[in-house]
Amino acid sequence: MIVSALLTSVGINFGLCILFLTLYSILRKQVGNINVYAPRLAVEGNSKQTSHFSFESLLPSPGWVRRAWQASEEELLSSSSLDVVVFVRIFSFSLKLFSLAGVVGIFILLPINFFGTQLNEIDIYDIPYKSLDQFSISNVEDGSKRLWIHFCAVYFISVVVCYLLYDEYNYISSKRVQCFYASKPQPHLFTILVRGIPLSDGSNINDTVESFFREYHSSTYLSHVVVRRTSKLHDLISDAKKLYKRLIHLKSMSHQRNRESGFFGKKVDLVNHYEKKLEDLHENVRRGQSDVSLSGEEVPAAFVSFNSRYGAAIGFQFQQSINPTEWVTEQAPEPSDVYWPFFSTSFLKRWIFKLLVLVASFFLIVLFLIPVFLVQGLTNLNQLETLFPSLKGLLSIAFVSQVITGYLPSLILQLFLSMVPPIMKIFSSMQGLISNSEIEKSACYKVLWFTVWNIFFANVLSGSALTLFNVFLDIKNIPMKLAVAVPAQASFFIAYVVTSGWTSLSSELFRMFPLMWNYIKPCVRNANDEFDVPSFPYHSEIPRVLFFGLLGIIFFFLAPLILPFLLAYFFLGYVIYRNQFLNVYAPKYETGGKYWPIVHNTMIFSLILTQSIAVGTFGLKKLPLASSLTIPLIVLTLLFNEYCRKRFLPMFKSYPAEILINKDREDYNDPNIGIFLDELVNAYKDPALMPIRYSQNDNEHNAPLLEEARGSN
Amino acid sequence: MIVSALLTSVGINFGLCILFLTLYSILRKQVGNINVYAPRLAVEGNSKQTSHFSFESLLPSPGWVRRAWQASEEELLSSSSLDVVVFVRIFSFSLKLFSLAGVVGIFILLPINFFGTQLNEIDIYDIPYKSLDQFSISNVEDGSKRLWIHFCAVYFISVVVCYLLYDEYNYISSKRVQCFYASKPQPHLFTILVRGIPLSDGSNINDTVESFFREYHSSTYLSHVVVRRTSKLHDLISDAKKLYKRLIHLKSMSHQRNRESGFFGKKVDLVNHYEKKLEDLHENVRRGQSDVSLSGEEVPAAFVSFNSRYGAAIGFQFQQSINPTEWVTEQAPEPSDVYWPFFSTSFLKRWIFKLLVLVASFFLIVLFLIPVFLVQGLTNLNQLETLFPSLKGLLSIAFVSQVITGYLPSLILQLFLSMVPPIMKIFSSMQGLISNSEIEKSACYKVLWFTVWNIFFANVLSGSALTLFNVFLDIKNIPMKLAVAVPAQASFFIAYVVTSGWTSLSSELFRMFPLMWNYIKPCVRNANDEFDVPSFPYHSEIPRVLFFGLLGIIFFFLAPLILPFLLAYFFLGYVIYRNQFLNVYAPKYETGGKYWPIVHNTMIFSLILTQSIAVGTFGLKKLPLASSLTIPLIVLTLLFNEYCRKRFLPMFKSYPAEILINKDREDYNDPNIGIFLDELVNAYKDPALMPIRYSQNDNEHNAPLLEEARGSN
Repeated sequence: MIVSALLTSVGINFGLCILFLTLYSILRKQVGNINVYAPRLAVEGNSKQTSHFSFESLLPSPGWVRRAWQASEEELLSSSSLDVVVFVRIFSFSLKLFSLAGVVGIFILLPINFFGTQLNEIDIYDIPYKSLDQFSISNVEDGSKRLWIHFCAVYFISVVVCYLLYDEYNYISSKRVQCFYASKPQPHLFTILVRGIPLSDGSNINDTVESFFREYHSSTYLSHVVVRRTSKLHDLISDAKKLYKRLIHLKSMSHQRNRESGFFGKKVDLVNHYEKKLEDLHENVRRGQSDVSLSGEEVPAAFVSFNSRYGAAIGFQFQQSINPTEWVTEQAPEPSDVYWPFFSTSFLKRWIFKLLVLVASFFLIVLFLIPVFLVQGLTNLNQLETLFPSLKGLLSIAFVSQVITGYLPSLILQLFLSMVPPIMKIFSSMQGLISNSEIEKSACYKVLWFTVWNIFFANVLSGSALTLFNVFLDIKNIPMKLAVAVPAQASFFIAYVVTSGWTSLSSELFRMFPLMWNYIKPCVRNANDEFDVPSFPYHSEIPRVLFFGLLGIIFFFLAPLILPFLLAYFFLGYVIYRNQFLNVYAPKYETGGKYWPIVHNTMIFSLILTQSIAVGTFGLKKLPLASSLTIPLIVLTLLFNEYCRKRFLPMFKSYPAEILINKDREDYNDPNIGIFLDELVNAYKDPALMPIRYSQNDNEHNAPLLEEARGSN
Repeated sequence: MIVSALLTSVGINFGLCILFLTLYSILRKQVGNINVYAPRLAVEGNSKQTSHFSFESLLPSPGWVRRAWQASEEELLSSSSLDVVVFVRIFSFSLKLFSLAGVVGIFILLPINFFGTQLNEIDIYDIPYKSLDQFSISNVEDGSKRLWIHFCAVYFISVVVCYLLYDEYNYISSKRVQCFYASKPQPHLFTILVRGIPLSDGSNINDTVESFFREYHSSTYLSHVVVRRTSKLHDLISDAKKLYKRLIHLKSMSHQRNRESGFFGKKVDLVNHYEKKLEDLHENVRRGQSDVSLSGEEVPAAFVSFNSRYGAAIGFQFQQSINPTEWVTEQAPEPSDVYWPFFSTSFLKRWIFKLLVLVASFFLIVLFLIPVFLVQGLTNLNQLETLFPSLKGLLSIAFVSQVITGYLPSLILQLFLSMVPPIMKIFSSMQGLISNSEIEKSACYKVLWFTVWNIFFANVLSGSALTLFNVFLDIKNIPMKLAVAVPAQASFFIAYVVTSGWTSLSSELFRMFPLMWNYIKPCVRNANDEFDVPSFPYHSEIPRVLFFGLLGIIFFFLAPLILPFLLAYFFLGYVIYRNQFLNVYAPKYETGGKYWPIVHNTMIFSLILTQSIAVGTFGLKKLPLASSLTIPLIVLTLLFNEYCRKRFLPMFKSYPAEILINKDREDYNDPNIGIFLDELVNAYKDPALMPIRYSQNDNEHNAPLLEEARGSN
């Protein structure tokens, strides 16, 4: 790719970004769009928008940028959750890192690369037609003494990344403790999930659990809820909900018509028919509920509650039974976070499912390479011309060819990739995990590996095509092969940052699909008026952001030209995501910052990869001493990571005795703890066994609503 | 190697074995040798030997074999420990495995190999001059259908090993529970070791520990002992002990002389001088002890005792502090098992030491290859002849050349190897481990890796010499390379079993060095009359036995001729070690069978290695289908191992809540538990801070002994 192609791509994307930002700052002020751009505020009733029209509301204004920038971390924490803070800190971490790296990269490494071969004759008008390779390490002569500066740069980036990572880990783990101390009593800290309950003949699960915990945890055991097989009930209830919505809609329609034309009759018949059906369904659900409760569709699993956090922690940190596959305990998720459908409970079954999911994920990753390679082919104009000779004329137009090489490939990739997070989430949910948060965390890892493998390695090593695995089986030569392949793909990844990165941010802000839905909704029959505040999809967003971090770290010493574009990405991202967290997303669950270890591990992986490439590059550039001197850096980085694992990771797995006991003591003086413990007994009841709730606000029984539905007829 | 050379080696070693066994069965009956062959019985006073001479005591008798064979496992368990049972079960496991494998190997695989190329002409008189390769898989034609039988054999051995391993793991973990239930209250189950105690200004460790555990473990905390820096005291005490011994010796000498000649004077001066010096030393020790106790040479570590096993278990299974590098807890070892000298306590320091030890072990393993390669050269007569041309005449004698090729190499290897376990033990002791048992367990792993790497891989891949590492960096080709190299070394390993294996057993039984010492001792001045019952060196014996298991599993399908010799080894070992445990060794500590996971892992490793070699072999023999069909077997074996890790390993790490609480409840009804808890307070006092004990029987103060020493003057 030449400089002018890159500039075209940057120009297009910059223009698009500005367009989207301007549109956003106009559209967000329109009253009708509040559900799109500030659903959180709308639900919380904090929206300050006035309904009368003003001219000002048609002018773009940057006020939201200021508000998003100024919002303090405390504000984010109190309005959302620690997970949000962790996510935003990925951006602030990256900004710190790449500002430092950017200064070194642009002012030191870039000139060295550029003047690598010919020092004297630089024609400024010639630059647009120069290859981007001119700005990368490929341009430096073999064996040149200047490569020692690149060597220093590798050490520099390693030290900076490690220092920042340590600092950040330390900060977030202390934040985690602070949040714990500041929290009110939460059911999931008092409760454990027990699986693999062994049954002797003639006893039922309920009694077995009761007697086991009365026997071995007599002083702390409070109550328990046995999990039941309720998938049929869940189906019935979702049918009932659908029917209810249709009924409500029909009624409002017939009401309108009634007023408009006085004509009804057939409609009323339909309403009556639906009402009859809904009542039947209700009857079925009620019968099903009592059936399940009585006849014992019990699963050998139970939520066991304790009267203190420490008691619960002892329950799940301790192996309970001689056979470790029985009485398997783990901390319960938040009640709303429980993933009810997949309560596969046998130890062996869960293990096998997990293995199958891993195999499936592995194959997804491998099979996915095929479309990626096709896409990769598009950047090769010659290949395209041979494939479709009729396009020859079109492709010879400079602009078209530039769009195709600079823009199209990453757009198509993007499209394919958007399908992956949902698939990975489905995979994760089949793994026997018990909470939505765990599922998203597991999916996050899968998507991350997917991204790194399919976008980075597949693109970098596409030359060697399907022999990708062979490369990785020949450990010794990996650095060499990467050193050859990675710098060659620098221009692709610079374009990738500009297209995929910037586009994803502006589309995140603009919320195209919710906006369209908002305008289409009034015209669609059966559309549900209620809207949920969306929750943030960590499992797809974290891998995306981390991947840009990986690119930055790797190309810092290979092709520092990527850094300004990355800095723009992280700066824009920092503002946009903060804005979205304040206005759009509401947290569905709180893991207490458990996503940070993923970030940390990915950064360490990026660093190790960079260092391996450095080993290969210096070897290739005939500087064997620099190559060997980089190897200790890999060892030191691994040791640093190991130390961080020992120093910080335990804090992210479970809370230590000290703070659990302190917090429990605090509660002794709290007059409300008695009420909380009473409520705890019911916190983990399966929602399918409770009266049906038709809406978010319907906290009570469904009866009044049904009445209302009937009454309004 | 040809068959006759093997037979020579077998003949020599069989003869030596018979000789040693006969000598043993005579020598053990001699009264003077009781300290050599039954030190345990001698100390326990169970020896039934009469002192009067009888002719029968000069005749060899096999009674000891019968007794060793008949002793039940319960007997071993009650007289020794579960560790001993585990060790003996390695032999019974191997006997079961290799009997089955032997039947298949000798009666099915061996004929197939032998008749591999030519079916008809077998001259029975020709066999001694045939190469041993004739009996190995190398003799089967490429692409032969008969190789499918070998393929089935690989599946067969995998299934048998896995079945037996599962069975054994199950048995030993249930045995571990039984032993726990049957045990009396033991101090180490009620105590934890705390390290990394943080100190705030102006407070001392004693108060910090006290207040921390009173605060967070108020209901279970009993007492604690702060560890002190006592290495100087330990030195002083060992000086005093040496001096005491010399004094006692001198006194008995002067006594004798006194009686004999009435001449003394100079001797008495010396005795007085020594007595003076000993008293000074005693004074120093006493001053040192009070200094250490008062002035606070405290180490930030303490043994903390609890009033129940469950309380202690909560203490060490739970992360105590927010910072996981502070208040680091682990289960205390048995009081007599504590390794006092190395109480390096800072978390970071211990971690760095551990890394350094790992690096040192790694280098020991790598550097050790050089002598091994030299030894390997000796089996090559041609090489020897070119190195030492003067030996040409000697080497041309058939017997000499057979001894050299069949016997000498493994003997020299053996000599080198005997130096390794002590070195590895020193390494392990520098790792910051707190007990002798942990040190031996860690050394056991190191010696095991050492053995596998240096004896197996170095011998097998010696052709490719120092490029050994390159082989392992090229993962994909490992099976091929092993498939070429391993069968070629079959004859070396058959000889190794016969020489090294059989010899090690007879020397174990014969106890050459203690026997010699027993005869020399009376003639040596300053010899100590007291003798300790030896403890069993698990860290050198377990790797040795396991290595023979590895050889058996690997060569089962490659060269089944090894199996009869291995069976002989395991049968002999079974009898001899049982005999030794009953008569010679006394357990110094009890890990409760924690050595078994090492055995299990090694067997799995052997199996995986075998299967990898099979993949390579079938590939090499042009049976690609069999080669690919072996790969699932590797995956299944790994999954089996993973399952066993989940199913059994937790039981070997710590006891579950269930049995701890049950056992604690049992104690409530025990009237002696109060006395035990009172004594617990002093169980973990540093021996250097207690009055000096000069002999095993001296349980009381040293004062009477000193008096006695003075009085007898």
